[in-house]
Amino acid sequence: MRGNMTKLNLIITMGVFILAVVFAMPLCALAIQPDAEYLVRQKQFGEKWAAEDKQVHDKLAALEKKFGKKPNIIFILADDIGYTELGSYGGGKVRGFSTPNLDKMAAEGMKFLSFYSEPACTLTRAALMAGRHPVRMGITGVLFPGTEGMGLADEEVTVAEILSDAGYHTGMFGKWHIGGEPEHYPTNQGFDEALWSEGNPPWWGFNRNVKRTDNAGYTNMGGLVWSPAPENFAYDTGGNMRGKKGEKPEMVAPFSMKLYNTMDTDTANDVIDFIERHASSDKPFFAYYAGKGNHFWGANPDFMNQPAATNNSAQMAEHDHNVGRLLRKLKELGIAENTLVVWMSDNGPMYAMHPHGGYSLLRGEKGETWEGAIRVPGIVWWPKTIEAGQDPIDLVQVTDMFTTASSIAGAKNEIPNDRVTDGVDQSALLLLGEGKSRRDYIFHYNKEKLEAVRKDQMKYRTEPVKPHHNFYNIYHDPSERFPDEVRYGLWSGPGFKKMIQDHMALIEKFPHRVLKAYQREFDYPFDPEK
Amino acid sequence: MRGNMTKLNLIITMGVFILAVVFAMPLCALAIQPDAEYLVRQKQFGEKWAAEDKQVHDKLAALEKKFGKKPNIIFILADDIGYTELGSYGGGKVRGFSTPNLDKMAAEGMKFLSFYSEPACTLTRAALMAGRHPVRMGITGVLFPGTEGMGLADEEVTVAEILSDAGYHTGMFGKWHIGGEPEHYPTNQGFDEALWSEGNPPWWGFNRNVKRTDNAGYTNMGGLVWSPAPENFAYDTGGNMRGKKGEKPEMVAPFSMKLYNTMDTDTANDVIDFIERHASSDKPFFAYYAGKGNHFWGANPDFMNQPAATNNSAQMAEHDHNVGRLLRKLKELGIAENTLVVWMSDNGPMYAMHPHGGYSLLRGEKGETWEGAIRVPGIVWWPKTIEAGQDPIDLVQVTDMFTTASSIAGAKNEIPNDRVTDGVDQSALLLLGEGKSRRDYIFHYNKEKLEAVRKDQMKYRTEPVKPHHNFYNIYHDPSERFPDEVRYGLWSGPGFKKMIQDHMALIEKFPHRVLKAYQREFDYPFDPEK
Repeated sequence: MRGNMTKLNLIITMGVFILAVVFAMPLCALAIQPDAEYLVRQKQFGEKWAAEDKQVHDKLAALEKKFGKKPNIIFILADDIGYTELGSYGGGKVRGFSTPNLDKMAAEGMKFLSFYSEPACTLTRAALMAGRHPVRMGITGVLFPGTEGMGLADEEVTVAEILSDAGYHTGMFGKWHIGGEPEHYPTNQGFDEALWSEGNPPWWGFNRNVKRTDNAGYTNMGGLVWSPAPENFAYDTGGNMRGKKGEKPEMVAPFSMKLYNTMDTDTANDVIDFIERHASSDKPFFAYYAGKGNHFWGANPDFMNQPAATNNSAQMAEHDHNVGRLLRKLKELGIAENTLVVWMSDNGPMYAMHPHGGYSLLRGEKGETWEGAIRVPGIVWWPKTIEAGQDPIDLVQVTDMFTTASSIAGAKNEIPNDRVTDGVDQSALLLLGEGKSRRDYIFHYNKEKLEAVRKDQMKYRTEPVKPHHNFYNIYHDPSERFPDEVRYGLWSGPGFKKMIQDHMALIEKFPHRVLKAYQREFDYPFDPEK
Repeated sequence: MRGNMTKLNLIITMGVFILAVVFAMPLCALAIQPDAEYLVRQKQFGEKWAAEDKQVHDKLAALEKKFGKKPNIIFILADDIGYTELGSYGGGKVRGFSTPNLDKMAAEGMKFLSFYSEPACTLTRAALMAGRHPVRMGITGVLFPGTEGMGLADEEVTVAEILSDAGYHTGMFGKWHIGGEPEHYPTNQGFDEALWSEGNPPWWGFNRNVKRTDNAGYTNMGGLVWSPAPENFAYDTGGNMRGKKGEKPEMVAPFSMKLYNTMDTDTANDVIDFIERHASSDKPFFAYYAGKGNHFWGANPDFMNQPAATNNSAQMAEHDHNVGRLLRKLKELGIAENTLVVWMSDNGPMYAMHPHGGYSLLRGEKGETWEGAIRVPGIVWWPKTIEAGQDPIDLVQVTDMFTTASSIAGAKNEIPNDRVTDGVDQSALLLLGEGKSRRDYIFHYNKEKLEAVRKDQMKYRTEPVKPHHNFYNIYHDPSERFPDEVRYGLWSGPGFKKMIQDHMALIEKFPHRVLKAYQREFDYPFDPEK
């Protein structure tokens, strides 16, 4: 939230704004502050980009004329789905389940082959909301029950705030997971309304509302489901919260296995209800649908019919079904052509729950910066505006969705320039097609550590697996097995070092926010049978 | 070849044949001798299968009525292309090259998601030709230059022999690699005509026709290309042979880098010429197109424009281009609807030449029985007869193509039943669609050793990576990382043991052929510059 301005501040700000508009607009002083490597590329491609932007602008203007408002935008963030899980990415049947609706979405839209998330849940969610690598926002870990002092700070500017200011109805539904204190609530971060859970209920088996005898899905989860805990190691991690902007939210359902089993479908119902309410409004809407974890416990009995017979396979089938419902609803309401839908996963699989979690044929898992952890499926869908059947190899990072949504809403200049924004505007890639990505680089952070840097085909790991084995060619070796390509390292090493140096210099200029997480006291005794 | 019968033998054989027809036909005594596990399934599904066979028969009969002859059949065997290499299998751009023609073939036909080869080149080629695991034929290794005493024995009955006897024109073009002695020649194994190389020219860099200064493709092959060898360690490994059935073949081109660079295109030219010559014949044709290795040296300069900039990427682009030419030619000649085209890879990638060889996201490489070595891309194409856009997960093994081709040519009963034939008839899968595979099991041999057995989702390794870690669920874990699923092992262990026991009992009854390979004397001094 960026309210809280005093009147004086407001007057000063407006004065500065007018001065800026008059004197500095030709110099783009108000423009977004990108990372250093982007500026290098801007010098090289600025003219080409400006010509493309003109084309994008014309396309959007024509659409706005047709529909009388800016396009609706929907973000769907799936949980823990690896790069090779959907049928359209080589998974599906190969993994013992089907994803017909997501495959259809890909066929009707644009399937990204190089979509990168942050390494874990909280990190990606923060990056998606504020368009910045989480380390810049002081978010350096995954939030677990009872963590306080960390989350999406009030001072961060979210895509919901930008779109809200630009006249959008805004709604958030599902797993929030970027802070449990009032400051962090989605209703304090730009959403008019929200129905959310703090994290991935039922968190642990330690939740007092979870019974040892609850149905948690396939029985071969066995002893993994939950186990006794120290008497004081348990709390009520809350439940589903419902609220409106400026109001105190209420808890509408305490966590339970039953709630969790059908959570993805329940969330989708809420999203669809929100869409129906705003479909014919004279204002566009922005909906954020954060799906249930495709791992862990809690398989919806209605979807336990997949050949793989794992909780994950049921969860995949359920989520796929819900995405299909949502897209069909947009068509049914006649608003599909004025709605951009972005579907993506928050990170790769978690193997602790194997075989009930996800999978990736790529190396590594959630919480790392190997490809399996951060290269995820990502699809954009916008009938007639995004040409069907595309699959660009262009690099895209989750932060780009923040900037791109702001840009498509005509509000890119509302992104503050007093901080670095990592997300680049990918409108040209979406609307004009393959080869139009504005990035050929990514800084892969793992919490506070810069672990790897991508540039074109090459990936540089800051800590080699053994001396001089830092370099991977991601085209030659997508699973990162052959780091010893000294021939690449020799020419690309200095380039990477320069990129990192410039990146760090910009951090000096725009320092990271500092937050400090701490664990709150346990407030409930543990008695799972009660 | 199965000729060489004396007149007396012929008379006796014919007498036996007539007796068999009269007395034994109702008992199917002349039917193919399958492996033991097939017989178990036949008991269970025999009635269902008979009903399907009736449907298949009716479809084929209608087609034969329309075209006035049996369908043409083309086998295209690609070399060392891993499971995840084609665009339609999650590769393509992801690996820095494009395979638009093979992707189109998959979209217009049936793409197998569980097509299994033998672990290496010679082994798969023998299996494809004779429909039997190579171990049964005494073929227990990959043939290298100068190996003699091993190859496809005269007594093996090839698909070319069966189709030739059924009235097909037969032609073989490309890399033969199942024996270099006259007995093994394709023109002695059922092909009317052939243009072939004994192996993968230019074999080593030691070939006397290869100069150190020859263009071998991308320069970053560096020192790997070829190196000095002991003076007597080199021979003339021949060159391209051309011949006709019953005639002595002649060498038409000695091996050279130049010959190798364009070999796939030259081979495709020959195949297309063969097709053109027989397109309007009143007899159908069978063509076997064995492509150039997608590894090693030798990139065709015309295709060195792929983003990955490796020899492999050029070879992939070239082979893809040639498959496209061939399919377009069939359409142009108006015979596509009466032609079954089978495209498949002989095994997974070889990493010794990384990054100039292939790749697989799955575990393992050529020469092993991990999925990466034997799970390969496979596509069947037959406009209007095979429904477009299918991607069955059904298990298929390369030997099945032998039996299926014989069946589609109406000559399945010509398969000898004095030996075990591993290939099962997959006509129902091809013509009726997913779920109709006649196998849910595969015996994965590596040379003479039974290393793994597949049944449904499960794979059992005969030698565990550690005690009790023999079991992989290939749906849960396609990359074989989590063998410790004791829960699966416990119920599937006894089943696998019974399968192996019955398999071995049948080997007792039908023993393996015994061949003994030896290395012939080197016959040329080494002087690469001469």
